[in-house]
Amino acid sequence: MDPFTERTPRVVSAVKLLRGAERRKTGRFLAEGENSVTEALTTAAVHEVFFTEAAGDRFRGLLEVAAAAGIRTSLVTDRAMAALSDTVTPPGVVAVCDLLDVPLSRAVTPETRLLAVPVSIAEPGNAGTVVRVADAVGADAAILAGDSVDPHNGKCVRASAGSLFHLPIVRERDTDAVLDTLTAAGIRILATAADGEVSLDDADELLAQPTAWLFGNEAHGLDPAVAARADHRVRIPIRGRAESLNLATAASICLYASARVQHRGS
Amino acid sequence: MDPFTERTPRVVSAVKLLRGAERRKTGRFLAEGENSVTEALTTAAVHEVFFTEAAGDRFRGLLEVAAAAGIRTSLVTDRAMAALSDTVTPPGVVAVCDLLDVPLSRAVTPETRLLAVPVSIAEPGNAGTVVRVADAVGADAAILAGDSVDPHNGKCVRASAGSLFHLPIVRERDTDAVLDTLTAAGIRILATAADGEVSLDDADELLAQPTAWLFGNEAHGLDPAVAARADHRVRIPIRGRAESLNLATAASICLYASARVQHRGS
Repeated sequence: MDPFTERTPRVVSAVKLLRGAERRKTGRFLAEGENSVTEALTTAAVHEVFFTEAAGDRFRGLLEVAAAAGIRTSLVTDRAMAALSDTVTPPGVVAVCDLLDVPLSRAVTPETRLLAVPVSIAEPGNAGTVVRVADAVGADAAILAGDSVDPHNGKCVRASAGSLFHLPIVRERDTDAVLDTLTAAGIRILATAADGEVSLDDADELLAQPTAWLFGNEAHGLDPAVAARADHRVRIPIRGRAESLNLATAASICLYASARVQHRGS
Repeated sequence: MDPFTERTPRVVSAVKLLRGAERRKTGRFLAEGENSVTEALTTAAVHEVFFTEAAGDRFRGLLEVAAAAGIRTSLVTDRAMAALSDTVTPPGVVAVCDLLDVPLSRAVTPETRLLAVPVSIAEPGNAGTVVRVADAVGADAAILAGDSVDPHNGKCVRASAGSLFHLPIVRERDTDAVLDTLTAAGIRILATAADGEVSLDDADELLAQPTAWLFGNEAHGLDPAVAARADHRVRIPIRGRAESLNLATAASICLYASARVQHRGS
């Protein structure tokens, strides 16, 4: 059979998923590259896998796994793949998947011990990195609150290095609803804040409790009204002349600190 | 006086500094944007500041500081600024500065307690982020060892958010020479390694000593021969299903852990 081109209707439909509005409308997104497609086949609902001739040789095992699971695998031209791809050098394999996000109630349970809650973050690379760190430290879920970037954005999927498929991802525009749910579940809410009243250096006792960490927007930080609703505002002590840390590095330090304390002696 | 254009010889010379080869040849680089230019005026040798008409209004105070210090400030056209800029939306002010890096002997002294040593790292954004974190935790210097990206690359300068001007920056291609110098100075060398024999969770006693942290290349990690020369190989425990952390987040966690222990009780 001839490979699909960039004009084949199913390719045309899939290309549209590069846009957030189309993802919302259809409930689907694109996972690109060997790593993401492998993770998607393990954990997500995959509708179709597009691949180029070169990728068909390189990723034969992966395509066989898809085919064995009854998933349509479709050869496409290099031009069609370029249209499907979000990257300068397309890896040559893309899966059409159902969106991954789950309701808040799936992420906040009586067993929840550690949550990453980015609030109104804008950069997909940061969202993906926070999800990756949350996964690495063994957090229970990541909750994107407020007006945050779509985690199914291609750059976010890549930055997460597969972690988007590993832990529950929630999107909830109503930040107050997130805070209400956390409080009702008895989860301690900690906000990162440059002028926080608690130093992370001295927070071990706090961190032993079930904890949700709020991380604010890259440029503006956390909305003061949101920070005020946290149980504590925590600062990472700045000992040099830097004004601050960036979102992803601050989140890494806080999440690792919690995981370390919570796993002490276990 | 008419503004300089993209054909004015001094602008033409400065534009060439966007290339690493020209920076090496001339010993100069470009610092772009209000934050970087302000830092440069405080700490670096600045030869000239280019600005657009719009930026002249916005950054009047900054230009007055430059002029008062006897530094040439030159109005340029928007097109000339676009040529001088490394960004899509130029902030409108760029300084020509002497390169910042210092010899290894300036960064390794009897007072040294904490060093960040990225080895053969490739991404300028990562280099800048590691420098920013090193500054934030109060590290004494950052040493870019091996075949690392030029820290004077525009993307690195931006990612460092001014920190490139705050602490000594060393470039030393000979990684063995760096390790020899650290060892001779009695500084404990710790290598980040996914399979390290020491868990960072249990490393507090180690971290109390004067420490140099080695961080490896984004794709390949640390050269095993380099990791083998470290006093200890330290792993950040991965508790979820992520394979690893990225360079900048791993470096943040390690550097903060050291700073916390070293400042305990102080």
